[in-house]
Parts: sequence; C-alpha cells; structure tokens
Amino acid sequence: MIQEQNTVADLFQQITNFPSTKSGQNRLVYSAAWLKGQELLIKFALQANLQVAVDDYGSVYLDLVGTQADQVIATGSHMDTVKNGGRLDGLYGVLGGLQAILDLQQKYGQPVKTLRLISFCEEEGSRFNATFSGSKHYTGVSETTDLVDDYGIRIEEARAQAVTKLQQLSGVIRKLPQLPESFTELHIEQGMRLEKQGLSLGLVSGITGQRRYQLLVTGITNHAGTTLMSERHDALLNAIQLISRLQQLAQAVNPNLTFTIGSFAVWPNTSNVIPGKVEFSLDCRYPDEQVLNIFEKLMRNAATEIADPEIKVRIENWVHDQPVILDQKLLAANQRLAQKMGYQTMTMVSGAGHDSAIMSQRVPTTMIFVPSIKGISHAPAEATKKEDLARGVRFLAAALHREAY
Amino acid sequence: MIQEQNTVADLFQQITNFPSTKSGQNRLVYSAAWLKGQELLIKFALQANLQVAVDDYGSVYLDLVGTQADQVIATGSHMDTVKNGGRLDGLYGVLGGLQAILDLQQKYGQPVKTLRLISFCEEEGSRFNATFSGSKHYTGVSETTDLVDDYGIRIEEARAQAVTKLQQLSGVIRKLPQLPESFTELHIEQGMRLEKQGLSLGLVSGITGQRRYQLLVTGITNHAGTTLMSERHDALLNAIQLISRLQQLAQAVNPNLTFTIGSFAVWPNTSNVIPGKVEFSLDCRYPDEQVLNIFEKLMRNAATEIADPEIKVRIENWVHDQPVILDQKLLAANQRLAQKMGYQTMTMVSGAGHDSAIMSQRVPTTMIFVPSIKGISHAPAEATKKEDLARGVRFLAAALHREAY
Repeated sequence: MIQEQNTVADLFQQITNFPSTKSGQNRLVYSAAWLKGQELLIKFALQANLQVAVDDYGSVYLDLVGTQADQVIATGSHMDTVKNGGRLDGLYGVLGGLQAILDLQQKYGQPVKTLRLISFCEEEGSRFNATFSGSKHYTGVSETTDLVDDYGIRIEEARAQAVTKLQQLSGVIRKLPQLPESFTELHIEQGMRLEKQGLSLGLVSGITGQRRYQLLVTGITNHAGTTLMSERHDALLNAIQLISRLQQLAQAVNPNLTFTIGSFAVWPNTSNVIPGKVEFSLDCRYPDEQVLNIFEKLMRNAATEIADPEIKVRIENWVHDQPVILDQKLLAANQRLAQKMGYQTMTMVSGAGHDSAIMSQRVPTTMIFVPSIKGISHAPAEATKKEDLARGVRFLAAALHREAY
Repeated sequence: MIQEQNTVADLFQQITNFPSTKSGQNRLVYSAAWLKGQELLIKFALQANLQVAVDDYGSVYLDLVGTQADQVIATGSHMDTVKNGGRLDGLYGVLGGLQAILDLQQKYGQPVKTLRLISFCEEEGSRFNATFSGSKHYTGVSETTDLVDDYGIRIEEARAQAVTKLQQLSGVIRKLPQLPESFTELHIEQGMRLEKQGLSLGLVSGITGQRRYQLLVTGITNHAGTTLMSERHDALLNAIQLISRLQQLAQAVNPNLTFTIGSFAVWPNTSNVIPGKVEFSLDCRYPDEQVLNIFEKLMRNAATEIADPEIKVRIENWVHDQPVILDQKLLAANQRLAQKMGYQTMTMVSGAGHDSAIMSQRVPTTMIFVPSIKGISHAPAEATKKEDLARGVRFLAAALHREAY
C-alpha cells in the first residue's frame, strides 16, 4: 500500500491477511481478527517509540509527543470492518495516518504539538446495532451499552474481554486521552465521483444525514401445502410488498435519497413453512434532514396501510445521524495547501458516515478522500490505486505538518 | 394424546418434551432430539415385545409378528419435524399407529398377518435439501446422498453417526425389511377443511403435486451510503421485484396454486452494505401437473426479464413430486368401514406431501386425516382435539384389523 516505508506496508499485510482474505475482511469489533489488528498496531507503535494508550472501549491512541506535549493534532480512523468487507475502509486512515506521522518524524524530527494517531475501536455497527461507538466514547457524545450480537453475546462482555487483553500489553497505558485541537481523517471515497472526474483527492465539506431502521413484520406461521392462499398471513410476502412500496416512496421523495435493505431474516426459514416473522434493516441517507423526515413519515404511514389485520409492523430507528458540516477553516486551509502542492481536488459531501461526524461535535474536524476504483466499497473488491494511496498520505502529512510544526 | 393406554401417551410426552417445547419441535433428521425420539420409541417397543429393525437411513420398523409372518400390513409416518414445528405432524402417525397395533394385540391377540409400525427417518426436507428420504430408501425409489446442511455437515456423516447409535441398541436388528402388502398413514389434516365442515375424519384419495426451487439472485455488493441509486446492482431489491412478479404470475395461473417463499438469505447481510447475493426457496403445489408446468415456464421467463444485465438469476428445482392418486380399493374399503362405524368422513386430496406419496409407488397405500385446530401446522400452535386424535386411532385400528386378522 505505502511504498516509502516497508514497515507500515508490512503491517498492512499482516492485519489484512489475518485470518485470510478469501471472503473479505471481518474485523468485527472485539472479534479475534479485530484484536489481532489492534495488537499488531500497538506492537508496531511501541517499536517505533510512540506513546501508546488504550481506552476502555478498545480505541488505540499513538502519540508522537511534541515539545508542547499538551497541544495535540490528531488523525486516524477505525479498525473494525463490515462483514466480508474491504481492505481499505478504516484501515487506510489508521495506517496512512501512522505513515504520515512517521514520515514527518523522519523528515522534521520532534513536532511542536503532539501528533496523535487514533485507531477507533468501532464505526460500522456491523456486530452490534450501534455505530461510531469509539468516537462517541472518546468525545463523550454518548456511551454504547446494553446490546447483544447475533449470537447473544453482550457488548460489555465482549468489550471487557478484548480490551483487557490490549490494556495488559506491556508498554500500554490505560487511559482516555484529552481531546485534540483538530482531527483529520484520511479515507477512501467509497463512491465514483473522484474517479469519474479524474481527480485524486477529495476535500470533504460535510457528511450526509443517515438513518437506520429495523422493521419487524409479524404474521402467522403455517403449512406451505395445506394452507389456502386466501387463508394466509404470510409475513414474508407482506414484508416484500412493504419494501416495494417504501422503495417507490423513497424514489418519489428524492431520487438521490439512498435506500438500502442490507440485512434480512425470516422465521422459521424453512422452505415448506409460511414465514410468521421477518426482520430487516433499512438504511437511508441524504444531506438534507427534511428529506429524511418526510421519508420517515411516509414509511410509518405505509406500515399502517397493510390490509391484513393479522400482519403487524414494528419500526425501530436505531441510527439517527444528522447531516454534518465539517470545519470550514481546516477545509479552506487544505484547499490552499492542495493548490500549493499542485493537486487538483474536489470539495464534496460524504455519502458515508464517519467518525469525523462525531469528532466534529467537539473538535474542528476535516476529511481527505482518495478515489475508490469503480466506487466499490464494503466488499472484498474495494481498492485504490497505489499512487492515489501514497498521494493521500503525502497530503495528510503536509496538512499535519502545517498544524503541528 | 391417547387416553386408553398411559404408556404411549407417556412416550408422546417424553419425545415432545425433549429438549423443550418453547420454540416448537426441532427433530431435524439425525439431530440429538431426533435420535432421542427414535431411541425412546425403540426402547418402548422392545418392552412391548415388538420385533425392532433399523435400516441404514435410521427408519425404525416395529413388527407385531403374525401367524403368517411374511405377509405384512404396515402403518406409520415420520419422526422428523420442520424447524420450530408442531407436536403432531409425523409423530401422531407414528405413535397413533403404535397405539392402534397395541390395542389390537390386547383385544385380539396375535394377528394373522404381521402388523408393522414404521417411523420413517425423514420426510420434511428441513435439514438437507431433499424430502422423503426414509420412504424413498425403503421402497428403493431413490437414494438421498451427497448433501450438506446449513453448517456444512455432510448427510452421510450425520447419518452414519446417528444410525449407528440406533442399530447398536441391544435387541435391534439392522435390516431393510421387505415391503408390506399395504400401507396406511394416519396424519393430521394441516388444513381447515374438516374443521370447517364439522367432520372428524378425512379419507385421502390423492396427494397434490409439489415443486420446490432454490432461486439464487446475484448482483454487486457495495456501500449503502456512497453508491448512487442509479449505480446499484442490488440483489435484494431485484429479488423482491422478482418475487412480486412471480406471486402475480402464480395468482394468474390459478388462485389455488400455493406459493410460498419459506427460506430467504442475504449476503453479506449487514445494514450498511448493498446485498450482492440473495437465495430463497419457492414451494408451489397443485393437484394438476399441467398447472405446475405452466407456472414453472412463466417463472423461468420472468427470471430472464430483469432489466439490469449485472443481475443474474439461477433456478434449481430440487423437489419435483408429481400429483399422486392413492389406492382406490383401500379408500373404498375405508369409506365402507367408516359408514359401518357411524363416522362421517370427507374424501379429500392432501395439500401436503407425505411418505404415502412415495410408498404408493410400490405398495397399495391410503391415508386417514384427523382435523387440525384452525388449520395450523408446521408451527408450535399445531393441535388437534383429544377426541379427534383418539377417533383417528380407533379408525386406524379397525382398518388394520380388517386387513391383518
């Protein structure tokens, strides 16, 4: 990934090859693969003489201490992935940030302000129904507790077990560090806009609003052969009709409102039984809160309009992230810096949520995007050209240099 | 369930209470609960001095040997259940048949022809994608091999492990017995027709035709936030459109053609990832083969009509059971017998598949139905009134008496 220093590139290989890459990356928070990732990062940082802290959620903080140690400029991203995810989402920001800090140290020595690399424990919400738990804990925005994963494991239990292992590593300080003066997140675009326009850097002005719902449709389980079509209360066929209707509504509200049914489960899930229960997620995003409000209202109406009185729909909203405007001064400074360095950039709104959305509630925050090949992300084929990855790191290093030296 | 002899009723309680009934019955073939059921049945039969054989698929044969031992009259049903199934589907025919044979023995002593109770290993296809494997093996219609369950366990492995345990029980003979002269299956109706007409017995003239398909829809996995709606190849939304279309087609072909999507799975099944793959089952049934042929043709056409060239649909037909006409002589004899006993009956086509459909290919076969409360089956609420259960057993005993004494 990063050519200049083989060591961080090696670390990238070690993390992404554990346990194997066949079906993509599976560093779900507090899993064995996740733990391995944070451990490898910590061991690498200790060898590089960075100061290492781990908080009680398992986020890792690597400090290159400055002459004015208390003034901190931070960068980073998250260690976790979606199920069967790609190699760059999150990890590029973590290891790219590490690379940038090490490059600055090599070239300019000790900084004036402390340079901090953050590897947040969790951002994706792929194991427990909650997102950004790492940056929410760091900023004090909110705590993430009292959840269970698909196997019934409680988050507190999984967390305590994994985090203790990290905090007990020799050389690691257990602490929740002070907040930095600024936060810059380096990330892949995960869309096609940079690629389509032939640009290699995106400067992010804001993050789209995002809501995630769980919809539970209940009907009556019965025999697939002996129950007449007119006597059925089929949870699945009703769920499907509802989804078709919601898709139409989303399209009608705004064709750019994203609409994703990502997870879907059926009970009892047997070919010769009419499903009595269906649960699915609905993820929708738009930069304007009003559009999300209108869609939510229409969705709740649609759920009450199912003709069969035996079919019940329950809707739970478990992610409600308002659109975010990132720091205007950092954006302007990065725009000027890019011009100075001769990089053509695009100022853009992120369609994905990021830890930056949380960080920006407490700390001036900005983001830097590099292109995604074919826009593919959250999938094993997620990739970025080597030169684009290296350029992103160079630009991040220049931005951090401006702030910390 | 059966009042006259506490012992068979006890056996019913033992089998259906293992391991617990909270989420219904889960005697999936070769599972621990299934093994327990067959074991309890065998031990009970040995105590009652029946001759016990187990074949290499795990079907259990309990013989009350007649004076003309080689002439066999058989009854029975299957030990397995669907996931979270009811207490009567299959097991009522097994234990009701056992009760009938024991009642006959008590009342009339040794029969002329051997009375055989069969507890088939598997009928539901709820663990492996194959149905009626027990009766298919017994009749030699076909062998069921080379399948894996949802956990990747091979059927041969699961079978060998479980069946060995049964065959090694003291007093058990390992053998595939000769076919009987006739087979009568006692079963719950699993529909509402008897209940609606206030009748307590159904005599079955035939079994509906049944097909089950697996449909695999593939698209492209991508990020739920950054991928524009116009750039998506969403396997789930395309699968849902296809299902809506197929439901319309089924309805148009014949409103009584049953149409059930019972199992449904999504990959990677994460709320913030556009699904790249969806697999679902489709079960459809109708007594006229032509109707099933027409629907299949329309289904295959519909699958090719999806506009997005990145969306592929693969259809596999894994159950293809032709409509069955059961033995006319046995049916007529049962009709006369019911009249003689003063029972009002209804002659009906079964909407569910049964081992009788397989048995009838080699042996004169008939079925007796008792009513299902509210028609509910394949669900924990599956139930039949006590008096209806007892009447079914009495009628079966009378029918077996006619044939074997």
